[in-house]
Amino acid sequence: MALRRRMIRTEGQGLYEFTREAAAFLEAEDAEEGLLTVFVRHTSCSLLIQENADPSVQRDLKAFFRRLVPPSSDPVMDWIEHRQEGPDDMPAHIKAALTQVSIGIPYSAGRLLIGTWQGLYLFEHRDLPHRREVILHIAG
Amino acid sequence: MALRRRMIRTEGQGLYEFTREAAAFLEAEDAEEGLLTVFVRHTSCSLLIQENADPSVQRDLKAFFRRLVPPSSDPVMDWIEHRQEGPDDMPAHIKAALTQVSIGIPYSAGRLLIGTWQGLYLFEHRDLPHRREVILHIAG
Amino acid sequence: MALRRRMIRTEGQGLYEFTREAAAFLEAEDAEEGLLTVFVRHTSCSLLIQENADPSVQRDLKAFFRRLVPPSSDPVMDWIEHRQEGPDDMPAHIKAALTQVSIGIPYSAGRLLIGTWQGLYLFEHRDLPHRREVILHIAG
Repeated sequence: MALRRRMIRTEGQGLYEFTREAAAFLEAEDAEEGLLTVFVRHTSCSLLIQENADPSVQRDLKAFFRRLVPPSSDPVMDWIEHRQEGPDDMPAHIKAALTQVSIGIPYSAGRLLIGTWQGLYLFEHRDLPHRREVILHIAG
Repeated sequence: MALRRRMIRTEGQGLYEFTREAAAFLEAEDAEEGLLTVFVRHTSCSLLIQENADPSVQRDLKAFFRRLVPPSSDPVMDWIEHRQEGPDDMPAHIKAALTQVSIGIPYSAGRLLIGTWQGLYLFEHRDLPHRREVILHIAG
Repeated sequence: MALRRRMIRTEGQGLYEFTREAAAFLEAEDAEEGLLTVFVRHTSCSLLIQENADPSVQRDLKAFFRRLVPPSSDPVMDWIEHRQEGPDDMPAHIKAALTQVSIGIPYSAGRLLIGTWQGLYLFEHRDLPHRREVILHIAG
């Protein structure tokens, strides 16, 4: 069992991949077989496993979530109460609720069992730069 | 490794926090470092980690999900087939599908590694009072 | 600790139950108490725990997601960039992002602690037949 805190710097909404950092943690710990749990310690960003081949997939994902949950400055969002932290804040909480705060990924022979096209991402929902803390935990 | 069943009484749609109960379970088990898995045994409520500071965030979350998935009595939901358990039932299943049924949270030095503003909630999607069963499982 | 790869054949969008296969894995391993983690190695299908009693629930779930994320051939989806793999591909990635890629389920006395009405499903989002790989991992 081992635990690592990892900071990820973000610069606006979008997907920030950290698949390699997770794989490097397994290597550093000589992890053989077990479960990696990734947990993000925030409520306005989240985690996502998605295609890491074609960048247009990431642009479309970001666009979809923006259409589903527009900034609270948009007239269709006039029902939003929580506004004091800016027009991107409450939509960020909603997008976080619609995606994941923790993901468990089995590993074997020291390698994450993610698929060929899968990448592990922090999904930032805020506009301004942030430092986000992710916990990596392995049990095996 | 230890397991606990916990009942949560709900009285209508909304978020019911049980962060303290989860922390108390770690304490009671003298848990040091490991993984807490929370699992909800129902398909019309779900789990959510969200901001526990400003109550307006919770009201907005509830409002968003109601707008995204209105009761099946709403004319825009006329395509819903599953109606025999009331107008809030099928929307409840959909909201549960859009959120989480299980969440893994690492802990260290006997404390959950959730962020400062994160709270652990049961998200009730039904209107009538319910008793909901949550499984807390620790491995460490 | 044990690991199994399982292939699930799908034939178009919808829910494919594999609760029994997961339970059979516990039995084969003489698993007593612990955590089962299910992980899907793809980005255009996902995992879901949902009601396994009334089939209309599954039809409504599928219909909801199709309404929320129509095929990219639909005029309302004209903003989609990623189109080279067919009109069902980018919507499949989005639906996968809105549901789960991994689910942790505690078990005790050799049985999954899922609720009476809960079933474990692969949620296929593509139209053509696919072979999908799911990882089952137990630690206990």
